[in-house]
Amino acid sequence: MGDDQLPSWRETLAKQSIVEFVAAVTNPDSADFVAEAERIAVFDNDGTLWTELPMYAQLAFALDRAAELGDPASLEELHAGGMSALVDLVKLTHAGITTDEFAAVCRRWLASARHPRFGRPYPAMIYQPMLELLGLLNRNGFSCWIFSGGGTDFMRAFASEVYGLPPHRVIGSVGATEFRVGPSGPELVKSAAIQVINDGPQKPDSIHTHIGQRPIVAAGNTDGDLAMLQWTAASPRRTLQLVVHHTDSEREYAYDRDPVLGSGTEQILAAAAEDEWTVIDMAADWSAVHPEPR
Amino acid sequence: MGDDQLPSWRETLAKQSIVEFVAAVTNPDSADFVAEAERIAVFDNDGTLWTELPMYAQLAFALDRAAELGDPASLEELHAGGMSALVDLVKLTHAGITTDEFAAVCRRWLASARHPRFGRPYPAMIYQPMLELLGLLNRNGFSCWIFSGGGTDFMRAFASEVYGLPPHRVIGSVGATEFRVGPSGPELVKSAAIQVINDGPQKPDSIHTHIGQRPIVAAGNTDGDLAMLQWTAASPRRTLQLVVHHTDSEREYAYDRDPVLGSGTEQILAAAAEDEWTVIDMAADWSAVHPEPR
Repeated sequence: MGDDQLPSWRETLAKQSIVEFVAAVTNPDSADFVAEAERIAVFDNDGTLWTELPMYAQLAFALDRAAELGDPASLEELHAGGMSALVDLVKLTHAGITTDEFAAVCRRWLASARHPRFGRPYPAMIYQPMLELLGLLNRNGFSCWIFSGGGTDFMRAFASEVYGLPPHRVIGSVGATEFRVGPSGPELVKSAAIQVINDGPQKPDSIHTHIGQRPIVAAGNTDGDLAMLQWTAASPRRTLQLVVHHTDSEREYAYDRDPVLGSGTEQILAAAAEDEWTVIDMAADWSAVHPEPR
Repeated sequence: MGDDQLPSWRETLAKQSIVEFVAAVTNPDSADFVAEAERIAVFDNDGTLWTELPMYAQLAFALDRAAELGDPASLEELHAGGMSALVDLVKLTHAGITTDEFAAVCRRWLASARHPRFGRPYPAMIYQPMLELLGLLNRNGFSCWIFSGGGTDFMRAFASEVYGLPPHRVIGSVGATEFRVGPSGPELVKSAAIQVINDGPQKPDSIHTHIGQRPIVAAGNTDGDLAMLQWTAASPRRTLQLVVHHTDSEREYAYDRDPVLGSGTEQILAAAAEDEWTVIDMAADWSAVHPEPR
């Protein structure tokens, strides 16, 4: 089972561990059987489901949007200003606008912007093998969710369509909104206050708040995903942890540290080695990285 | 359709508006047709799906728990101390405990505590007609969600089972948790910080964060639900707003102001009159209030 359902995965241990896991937890005669309602899978987004270099898509969006708003910023300024400069940029480009307007702005950008290296729209920068994995899990009764550091509203502008997930299963960082009854009726206005930065130990917290069940599959790629994978691994059920390792400078990128925000991979790779999690070696395990252009 | 699916509803306008609405939005030949993925219904809990007098079940739980912890509080002290005394009580009784332990404490209490007037367990204090409505909507492709001022963790200890909703569709107020790798592995410890008080204008905000789609059905019973009903009513689709009006001092209670927290009904009843929302007159519209004892 699963062999022709993961055509972009080479016949290596990574694929084998996925196929074996899915077979075990869905087999009613297996000691590892898990009821459908408990088949929860959680995925990081940037670097796990799509390319995050040379910078997060949402950061590229924010820089384009700042320029459009007449207050341009540069990556160099962000590097110099650190997290507070980044937060300022997010506030400038993500606040003072209704949620409906913001969704339209995001969709416009996603349709027009191009990835600087690959020259394709950002939604084409998803990983074909991970898309196949989402499909495999979905067909086997899993509920797949995204828990990302990216903004929920930004992600929902493409993720539902691209990954085939309902919006309520796409969860990221959250800014406050203000409810008001405006001239065109009730609306939610995005404010500058950031309520949740959905990274690190916040991810299990968000999973608890948004799902209220312990996942049995978790996939990530940096130390910011470690807590999510630990939380999942501690389930009393059989679980699967996947770490996407960026080893492919030809077809994508090879790196162990995000050059923009500096998140590393030391802790998650050490945990993967110690706990026998599945490390996906992009160069070795995937026969394709991005979807074929249509 | 629907007639024998709502046996605890009398043949009045309230039932008629529900049945007509469901028929219209599920009929592919109707101009009001709404695709299944967009059939979202949101419900307040206390006073809308179950009895909230003489005090919220969660408050009764907190008072019992405070006594059990050797630091008893009384309703009179809470009245005198107002919101800050209430928050202190919640912190005492809801913090410093892992989410798993807290769920077990809640389930124990729900199994043993009895409603002071009806002498039945609190989960038997749900409204039979609303349970039938949840079932009708569910069978017609709706996703039903709860957005309550009560605590998410407390509600999930009974709501999934009693209402037949997965935990991720039971959303309330949220306290912060701290992720730690304790002696028995990774766990989430409930802290004293309240992150979200899910009432009033927060409800549309929470709906946006947790669902990311505009509901087409909303039900509430106090002014704290007004924003949720307004937000739903502003959908471009055909919508249904339900206001449960407590008019039945014999079988339940008759009141227009919550005697504990003081939430009123003036605004929501005024909006219902102006916008032709469906007001459910409990005494007139329901042939039964609580489920028959089994």
